[in-house]
Amino acid sequence: MTLRRRLYLTLDPTEKGGLLERIFEILLIAIILLNILSIVIDSVKEIDHEYSTVFRNIEVFSIIFFTVEYIARIYSIVEKPTYEDPVKGRLKFVLTPMALIDLLSFLPFYLTFLPIDLRFLRIFRLMALFRVFKIARYLHALKIFKRVLTERKEQLVLSFLFILFILVIVSFIMFYVEREAQPDKFSSIPATMWWGIATITTVGYGDMVPITVWGKFLGGIFAIAGVGLLALPAGILSSGFFELLHEDRRKTIVCPHCGKEIHEE
Amino acid sequence: MTLRRRLYLTLDPTEKGGLLERIFEILLIAIILLNILSIVIDSVKEIDHEYSTVFRNIEVFSIIFFTVEYIARIYSIVEKPTYEDPVKGRLKFVLTPMALIDLLSFLPFYLTFLPIDLRFLRIFRLMALFRVFKIARYLHALKIFKRVLTERKEQLVLSFLFILFILVIVSFIMFYVEREAQPDKFSSIPATMWWGIATITTVGYGDMVPITVWGKFLGGIFAIAGVGLLALPAGILSSGFFELLHEDRRKTIVCPHCGKEIHEE
Amino acid sequence: MTLRRRLYLTLDPTEKGGLLERIFEILLIAIILLNILSIVIDSVKEIDHEYSTVFRNIEVFSIIFFTVEYIARIYSIVEKPTYEDPVKGRLKFVLTPMALIDLLSFLPFYLTFLPIDLRFLRIFRLMALFRVFKIARYLHALKIFKRVLTERKEQLVLSFLFILFILVIVSFIMFYVEREAQPDKFSSIPATMWWGIATITTVGYGDMVPITVWGKFLGGIFAIAGVGLLALPAGILSSGFFELLHEDRRKTIVCPHCGKEIHEE
Amino acid sequence: MTLRRRLYLTLDPTEKGGLLERIFEILLIAIILLNILSIVIDSVKEIDHEYSTVFRNIEVFSIIFFTVEYIARIYSIVEKPTYEDPVKGRLKFVLTPMALIDLLSFLPFYLTFLPIDLRFLRIFRLMALFRVFKIARYLHALKIFKRVLTERKEQLVLSFLFILFILVIVSFIMFYVEREAQPDKFSSIPATMWWGIATITTVGYGDMVPITVWGKFLGGIFAIAGVGLLALPAGILSSGFFELLHEDRRKTIVCPHCGKEIHEE
Repeated sequence: MTLRRRLYLTLDPTEKGGLLERIFEILLIAIILLNILSIVIDSVKEIDHEYSTVFRNIEVFSIIFFTVEYIARIYSIVEKPTYEDPVKGRLKFVLTPMALIDLLSFLPFYLTFLPIDLRFLRIFRLMALFRVFKIARYLHALKIFKRVLTERKEQLVLSFLFILFILVIVSFIMFYVEREAQPDKFSSIPATMWWGIATITTVGYGDMVPITVWGKFLGGIFAIAGVGLLALPAGILSSGFFELLHEDRRKTIVCPHCGKEIHEE
Repeated sequence: MTLRRRLYLTLDPTEKGGLLERIFEILLIAIILLNILSIVIDSVKEIDHEYSTVFRNIEVFSIIFFTVEYIARIYSIVEKPTYEDPVKGRLKFVLTPMALIDLLSFLPFYLTFLPIDLRFLRIFRLMALFRVFKIARYLHALKIFKRVLTERKEQLVLSFLFILFILVIVSFIMFYVEREAQPDKFSSIPATMWWGIATITTVGYGDMVPITVWGKFLGGIFAIAGVGLLALPAGILSSGFFELLHEDRRKTIVCPHCGKEIHEE
Repeated sequence: MTLRRRLYLTLDPTEKGGLLERIFEILLIAIILLNILSIVIDSVKEIDHEYSTVFRNIEVFSIIFFTVEYIARIYSIVEKPTYEDPVKGRLKFVLTPMALIDLLSFLPFYLTFLPIDLRFLRIFRLMALFRVFKIARYLHALKIFKRVLTERKEQLVLSFLFILFILVIVSFIMFYVEREAQPDKFSSIPATMWWGIATITTVGYGDMVPITVWGKFLGGIFAIAGVGLLALPAGILSSGFFELLHEDRRKTIVCPHCGKEIHEE
Repeated sequence: MTLRRRLYLTLDPTEKGGLLERIFEILLIAIILLNILSIVIDSVKEIDHEYSTVFRNIEVFSIIFFTVEYIARIYSIVEKPTYEDPVKGRLKFVLTPMALIDLLSFLPFYLTFLPIDLRFLRIFRLMALFRVFKIARYLHALKIFKRVLTERKEQLVLSFLFILFILVIVSFIMFYVEREAQPDKFSSIPATMWWGIATITTVGYGDMVPITVWGKFLGGIFAIAGVGLLALPAGILSSGFFELLHEDRRKTIVCPHCGKEIHEE
């Protein structure tokens, strides 16, 4: 096996591998988690002042690691049949959403000499977390999720359209019902939608609450209706999960009349 | 094809069509969304003062569009077998709920010379959003929703009756338990039902909360019972979705080898 | 048909009947709903003062109606095979929970000359609402609910035991974590359980919220765990509903080898 | 039957037994519940002062009961084939997690002469509640739960990874959006995660709420997305429960008429 092939197999998280692949996988997850932890904790002022050097070191180390790994993957990706061509294949790979996110996870670091605040660009370093989902162990489950979401896309989109539809109508009505009693809180339809979302999703912060009799009456009906609406996506997803499983099982049937196999769908 | 037939096919969202139908579909959705957006944003005072002319123009344009489209649909609807008769068919169509909502979406505009506030009638323009659901793409999913709701109607109605039943009993008890400790908040049974709805739907605004030991004890039991109650409609809907799918599959299969029918289970 | 048989068929809500039964059914529901409405609205002080005579009249009328109906049912119940015996059968019927609730719905009214406050006993009049569920239309759905709950009883009980178990452990821990920061709110384990219930059921009133770092950290984990716990009864119920339906379908299978029918289970 | 065997059968909750086993089972549950009740109520200051002797007596009695039962179980466990060996078997049993929790439920009591506060160690006495789940009656349901969780482990882990992923990203964004408007509440990313958890789980305490327009806009989207995320574990669990049930049924059926096996589907 060539070194490039060796490298490719080690770096591609979708391939189940030997000890080396396992070690690299664990190292990658460790660095990603360390990164997230450092970004999250770095935002706490009291901690930041004391341990700023530690966070800086973690950042530098991660950036170097991500950069080297990125270059190594571009070098070795031609081992994958879909990216065979040395130039076009590599370019095609560089432009995949995942590779772009990877690039963005370390690129802003090299731009810190620019006079703009790049702190917010750290979000791309957070997005490196998305790579964890591609690890072989979770790949099968991720594919099931994708299939359920794809097959039930129309129904799910329709559910969310329903939720949005109800939300707009409800907020429109509540605005006219409550605006005189609470002109500062129910000040406009978009402002009322904040209450509407909190109610329909059953979050219910309590920062905006109807106080008029009619507002409470209508708000109560909407809250109960919201429960019904939320049951829709839950129902669609659970039947979707079961359907998938059922389908895998039903592939071959033996005809009891002639004994031959029938492949459904 | 006559112009009227052409018009009918273009305007009926339930028919999958060619490029012209697609363009009209997108135009219609764009105008509806623009309308909703303008109604929603128009309610924000700060924005309204600056862009009032823009909103006015959007309104006028939409009203004209809806009016023309409404007339065109009445003219062409006779192409649909159910509305064949030139007079009776058109009258029958005009009186369908959807056509009435469509009429109400532009009619109030022409009455603005009247000395009454018609702002609230804009809700019918919002309801134009309902037409989005009738677009061919979502029609299949909408039919599935309808079938699930129809087949499980009794069970769903019963679930909501249960929720209402528990709500009334719980609010009655909580009123007697809490009214002395918080006479201003738990002032009557209807007032206590506002707390009851917020608890059973798990919205939990927090504007009304029991403070007595018994109130908290009973309130806690009701909250946990509410969780069980909410699982009922979710369970009914998800089994309903799966049932439908299963039924479609269980239709007789013909063995492609010997031509005989196989009746599964 | 004897008058008694006629009476029995009219009064028993579980029997689907002709016009007379339908009229009685609607009348009964109307009176029950009127009763509930009057009890609920009667608690609103402002309304009570003005319309007290109306509420009094509704009460008197309902009580007379319930009393007459109760006597008529005891008289006619012997038509039902299970309550055949004129004395024992009637006594057996009088002692069923439903008949006792019915008795309690009007009996306290006749005791108003006593110097005790019987207002709370109106709860039995509210419970008359329970009779609505026994109406023929909902009887089938009610039976399905009962079967699902019976077949999944163990799993549902275990789910709620889990929820209780987590609740006790969580409240114990949170009490020790938060009591020093908020000694007035997290004053004891039972007090902390109020927070625990609000969190696990996702009601989240917000009247009690951890403020220490550890309290928030543990509280966050408990909230996410709560979500998983709530999915348990939902999952059990939905698979229960589907199982039932599936079972009804699978009753008869034809053996493809010998052509005879097999009755499963 | 030897006394040791008799003892073993009585103490092992996983064996369905006669009257003696039933009595012991009920006694054990009663003591565990009494213990939990006493620990929970003991934390209420007002009650503690008055009834401290009662609680002390319950404690002493429970500790003696647990100690004797623990020794009796170690003595008799060799009757179980897996722990046959008099020395190694007993040691193996002592080191099982359940036996260690049992040990911890009474051991700290004997250390009260030490000058440290052992009150928190009572949590192990609470954990004795876990033994209730091992009682024969719930064992079947518990096994079903375990199988569903085991078979769907990957999908459930992935769902919670998704929730965590969304939580981190959302909190990162909300921190940058809200920190200027509310520097005291949205003070750091971990602080913002408290809001994120309350929103995604739909608990919604309301102690932290975005107030900027962008914060509310993004917060609203996250709340609706949270609803979809929560539907994932619910869907996975309900399809898991149904799958299990379905599998059990699909075992080969033997036709009682001709004796041949029928392989369904």
